[in-house]
Amino acid sequence: MTDMNDRLNQWLRDAHAMEEQAEQMLDAQARRIENYPELKARIEQHISETRSQKQRLEACMEKRGTSWSGMKDLAAQFSALMQAAGGMFAGDEVVKGSMASYTFEHLEIVSYRILVAAAEAAGDAETARVCEEICREEEAMASWLQDHIPQVTQAYLMREATDSGAAKR
Amino acid sequence: MTDMNDRLNQWLRDAHAMEEQAEQMLDAQARRIENYPELKARIEQHISETRSQKQRLEACMEKRGTSWSGMKDLAAQFSALMQAAGGMFAGDEVVKGSMASYTFEHLEIVSYRILVAAAEAAGDAETARVCEEICREEEAMASWLQDHIPQVTQAYLMREATDSGAAKR
Repeated sequence: MTDMNDRLNQWLRDAHAMEEQAEQMLDAQARRIENYPELKARIEQHISETRSQKQRLEACMEKRGTSWSGMKDLAAQFSALMQAAGGMFAGDEVVKGSMASYTFEHLEIVSYRILVAAAEAAGDAETARVCEEICREEEAMASWLQDHIPQVTQAYLMREATDSGAAKR
Repeated sequence: MTDMNDRLNQWLRDAHAMEEQAEQMLDAQARRIENYPELKARIEQHISETRSQKQRLEACMEKRGTSWSGMKDLAAQFSALMQAAGGMFAGDEVVKGSMASYTFEHLEIVSYRILVAAAEAAGDAETARVCEEICREEEAMASWLQDHIPQVTQAYLMREATDSGAAKR
């Protein structure tokens, strides 16, 4: 038997580790993009949002009297996940990178939806509100990617048909 | 330099391997779920859809004169990805399983959006139409999960607070 509050604390720690991973992944992506300036700018904006999201999660956990340290195991699992995904990014890097970002955004979206439901069940309205707010930001990023991925794909294909070096990034 | 048609063929093969992986993952999930009958039924429905999607992709590739065999590398990468994800499913299995399904649906959605854009760029209207159609089915599954995950989460937390064995699956 596990108490709802314990489970909610655990999921908040998971979300915090997920944002750590998101920051690393977005950072690496933004640094590598050269020829897709709009995409690079939107990713950079989302890096700032991600840092602020981490802080807001920390504030929730502090208020709940729980800590976010010691998440090395989960972070390592996420890294393995991303390393496995990374193996698929050869050649058509910017397209596969956008695909990974879009997918990861939805991992974040569903995590926050679960947290909202869990915080409501545990009667923690403030944590529910913060997770709802972060979820909206993740949805905005996902929706931006959804709108722009077709044009990134077509720009990539055009460039690849003429000059594969510039197309990739 | 890579021809658009070659790249489209490669992405269609990737999508086919992805559906293979989806079928395995959904199958394993449906078999393990015991106490969430609605979720189990929706997953089972989506297994049939997934099989039909594979066949529709095969028909597109046949028409394009390309084959979908020899995808062992990508399939292996996907398995590594899922194995890494699987490490996170201890304890709160039904919640993490739903999270994985929702995330994987969005990997599928973005893949088909990319394929639609690529097929349009390559002037293959039939492949664009089929990928659009499959995308709608993936979106319907994702939307069902999105609507039901809060209640699965809360049912799980209630059960876990009283009887952890039944809650998990």
